Amino acid sequence: MEKYNGLVTDLYQLTMTNALFRMGRHERRVVFDRFYRQNPFGGGYTVVAGLAHLVDFLTHFRFRADDIDYLRSLGIFDEGFLHYLADFRFTGDVYAMPEGTVAFPGEVLLRFHGTTAEAMMLETGLSMIMNHESLIATKARRIRTVAGKDALMEFGLRRAQGHSAGLWGARAAMIGGFNGTSNVEAGKRFGIPVLGTMAHSWVMSFDSELDAFRAYADMYHDNLILLADTYHVLECGVPHAIEVFRELRAAGRLPAKYGIRIDSGDLAYLSKEASRMFAEAGFPEAIISGSNDLDEYTIASLKHQGCTVSSWGVGTRCITADGSPALGGVFKMCAKEEDGVFEPVMKISNDVAKMTNPGVKAVRRFYRKDTGKMITDLVCLADEPMADGGATTLTTESAKWRRKELPAGTYTAVDLLRPVMQGGEPADLPPLSEVIRYADAQMDTLWPEYTRLMNPDIMEINLSDALQHMKNDIIEKELGRRAPRS
Amino acid sequence: MEKYNGLVTDLYQLTMTNALFRMGRHERRVVFDRFYRQNPFGGGYTVVAGLAHLVDFLTHFRFRADDIDYLRSLGIFDEGFLHYLADFRFTGDVYAMPEGTVAFPGEVLLRFHGTTAEAMMLETGLSMIMNHESLIATKARRIRTVAGKDALMEFGLRRAQGHSAGLWGARAAMIGGFNGTSNVEAGKRFGIPVLGTMAHSWVMSFDSELDAFRAYADMYHDNLILLADTYHVLECGVPHAIEVFRELRAAGRLPAKYGIRIDSGDLAYLSKEASRMFAEAGFPEAIISGSNDLDEYTIASLKHQGCTVSSWGVGTRCITADGSPALGGVFKMCAKEEDGVFEPVMKISNDVAKMTNPGVKAVRRFYRKDTGKMITDLVCLADEPMADGGATTLTTESAKWRRKELPAGTYTAVDLLRPVMQGGEPADLPPLSEVIRYADAQMDTLWPEYTRLMNPDIMEINLSDALQHMKNDIIEKELGRRAPRS
Repeated sequence: MEKYNGLVTDLYQLTMTNALFRMGRHERRVVFDRFYRQNPFGGGYTVVAGLAHLVDFLTHFRFRADDIDYLRSLGIFDEGFLHYLADFRFTGDVYAMPEGTVAFPGEVLLRFHGTTAEAMMLETGLSMIMNHESLIATKARRIRTVAGKDALMEFGLRRAQGHSAGLWGARAAMIGGFNGTSNVEAGKRFGIPVLGTMAHSWVMSFDSELDAFRAYADMYHDNLILLADTYHVLECGVPHAIEVFRELRAAGRLPAKYGIRIDSGDLAYLSKEASRMFAEAGFPEAIISGSNDLDEYTIASLKHQGCTVSSWGVGTRCITADGSPALGGVFKMCAKEEDGVFEPVMKISNDVAKMTNPGVKAVRRFYRKDTGKMITDLVCLADEPMADGGATTLTTESAKWRRKELPAGTYTAVDLLRPVMQGGEPADLPPLSEVIRYADAQMDTLWPEYTRLMNPDIMEINLSDALQHMKNDIIEKELGRRAPRS
Repeated sequence: MEKYNGLVTDLYQLTMTNALFRMGRHERRVVFDRFYRQNPFGGGYTVVAGLAHLVDFLTHFRFRADDIDYLRSLGIFDEGFLHYLADFRFTGDVYAMPEGTVAFPGEVLLRFHGTTAEAMMLETGLSMIMNHESLIATKARRIRTVAGKDALMEFGLRRAQGHSAGLWGARAAMIGGFNGTSNVEAGKRFGIPVLGTMAHSWVMSFDSELDAFRAYADMYHDNLILLADTYHVLECGVPHAIEVFRELRAAGRLPAKYGIRIDSGDLAYLSKEASRMFAEAGFPEAIISGSNDLDEYTIASLKHQGCTVSSWGVGTRCITADGSPALGGVFKMCAKEEDGVFEPVMKISNDVAKMTNPGVKAVRRFYRKDTGKMITDLVCLADEPMADGGATTLTTESAKWRRKELPAGTYTAVDLLRPVMQGGEPADLPPLSEVIRYADAQMDTLWPEYTRLMNPDIMEINLSDALQHMKNDIIEKELGRRAPRS
């Protein structure tokens, strides 16, 4: 689908790979983890999104002849390496939490098995795609948690940070619980419902607002939402809308869904007044749609004030992830092959928060059998046995005295990392409609304490004893090795 | 270049255009203004960027057969309109402030002359491109104002909001004063210098940090910047770097530019200690490069603390415009053809801030002859005569008592809106290198009071008397018309 080329990467990925190539070490097998350290927006979770795009990127990542020519012109790459790039394609494996999964800081969201060359050259694009789409899905989900059953429309293309931000952001918003988008390309590409009626320019292109409304009503008979704020919502917008609705009713063709959109001013006051005027005029079912720099906080506040908007057009602040415009997801090596065996590695930084978890790991989620609610996640080594339903004990890394006992028969456990690519070939991914259903169901597994906008409860993640021992051993060994500096 | 299609738009643009098409009014000629209402980041200005991309978009905007098929499948468009779309291409004129121009709220940044159909269908993509790239150029310029003569590198691709945010954002950062990017595709596409050396994964793929440094130094002889924080900057990173630099000096091949990069921890403390260690070891010219969630505020603070970093890698917070992730640029009709004459129109909203300026307008900038500094901008009707150097008086709309008198012979005036497209054909645009020079020169025309990070002086924009009269007349007429509602 996309035409991305092999240059969608950072220069250092290529200079490092070139150096490894010259040493004959570029095909050493490695395992990398993708994870993030902090929830965006001060919230309690992140919604995973971006796998469909990622698989497309990894499948089609190629260096074309003119890319190679450009790299040659930089004068820093070996000719042999440039030939290697011309034939390069990804042949590794990717395991990931399915799109729509609710994830938490420090967990492995994606595990990448490949050559060192693959990990290096693909890191930047892989991170970009997953960071961006998970971020927008998370922002959208926050908006959905306050919008209840109202309609939510994604209207952000004109303020998006570029074309792909608009396109893939619209898809991510659907995973976050939106009902449709104004982005026509996203509609075609992903089968998302496309929505929208008129702009101020429509109204202004007529001699009067009433003429503009009549002309539109004449043309479109479904979902007739008239934009009421070009001049003055209550003085003329609503009265003109009522006039048109009366004419339609008299002619027997008032559509099932009709109403107005308000795009400026005080939505609480204007919507309540408009609803009152519609009810008095005999149109109590008129829909009030609202837009204008909305986000989860304004919608929550407006609903608290009794605002009668039941259909929200959310643009700028969802598509740009206002408040936390980046997800700090990283991609770190956790194992490398030594004589045919994968040896665990980790980053031991000055900065404790930047330490990583070593080894080839799994993430297992525990749900309560009775309520279906999530209990916790366990990050462990991939070859540790799954909990089988018997009594089990989990330990938080940051607070080892806080052990969680799960009695036998009270929980179910599932492996969260599923194959997404195998040997460079895409696995069967679920269609977007199924992702959306799964994403909604995932949210239902969380108590609202974890999903509220501010100061949510923090889901505590557990590390298995085996993983903790491995980590401690590596730190001890490294400290020992450093002492006598060469 | 880009493969954008005609579906890069909002659905309502197409439903409105379809309706106008049916009424035979889609080819009525109109003029639209692009402007914004508020400076991003609480700053004093916006840097215009995006015209190269915009011209590409407008030149190649087409509906392909499969786009038409998709639109037909929605069941809301007339067959005649779909045929019209199949042949659609932009044939109008665009005037705009050149890329790199410093702009202020309420001014016309771009003026669009075309058919109503063109204005409607192209608005969304046009706004998206100009909003995004101007925003990133502005963020980058803020960072440049605190970085002084230091090197500034754009490292943001992995956290960008999608592929085009990374690509076009890298170009915009150059207009904002950056020196290069890590984004290889941006390097190829725009001729931007590409930069970068090694990542933690390089160091971790060796048995020791020292081996990793030696291997890299063996391979790359220019600009040797070793990443020093994989384990511990001062305990091993700097000592290992010194060891490698000693070996290189002994072998007579220490490069002219060498040093370390620190990507975590306290950059002020670590850089000062590292510089001291390098000086004591006989390497006082070692470059300290810094990265890790930097922006204009952290760089200003670090410099205030005596941080010795002289080369900054700025990623996430520039490429995502952290702090103000969207520019609220809008696109509003200002004139429409009536019987062959362009009649001014304006939006009269409940919300005074959402009122627009009517008519076909120019923006003229006044500079002082002696210092070259900018005095002010005048928004006027395009057919008003240019100030000819004689005494002139300018009036601010918001404070009419504050009249600015410009004595004869003290100023020069230039028209800021230049032709960018004529009859659908691109005008000759300057190459990026020239845009960058012009952008730097533009900043030199502003006193630092206008460019400081916080609470800057606000540049007051003036409306000509003729424009103010036109605006008042339209408001009076509209109020008169509304009184007796039909």
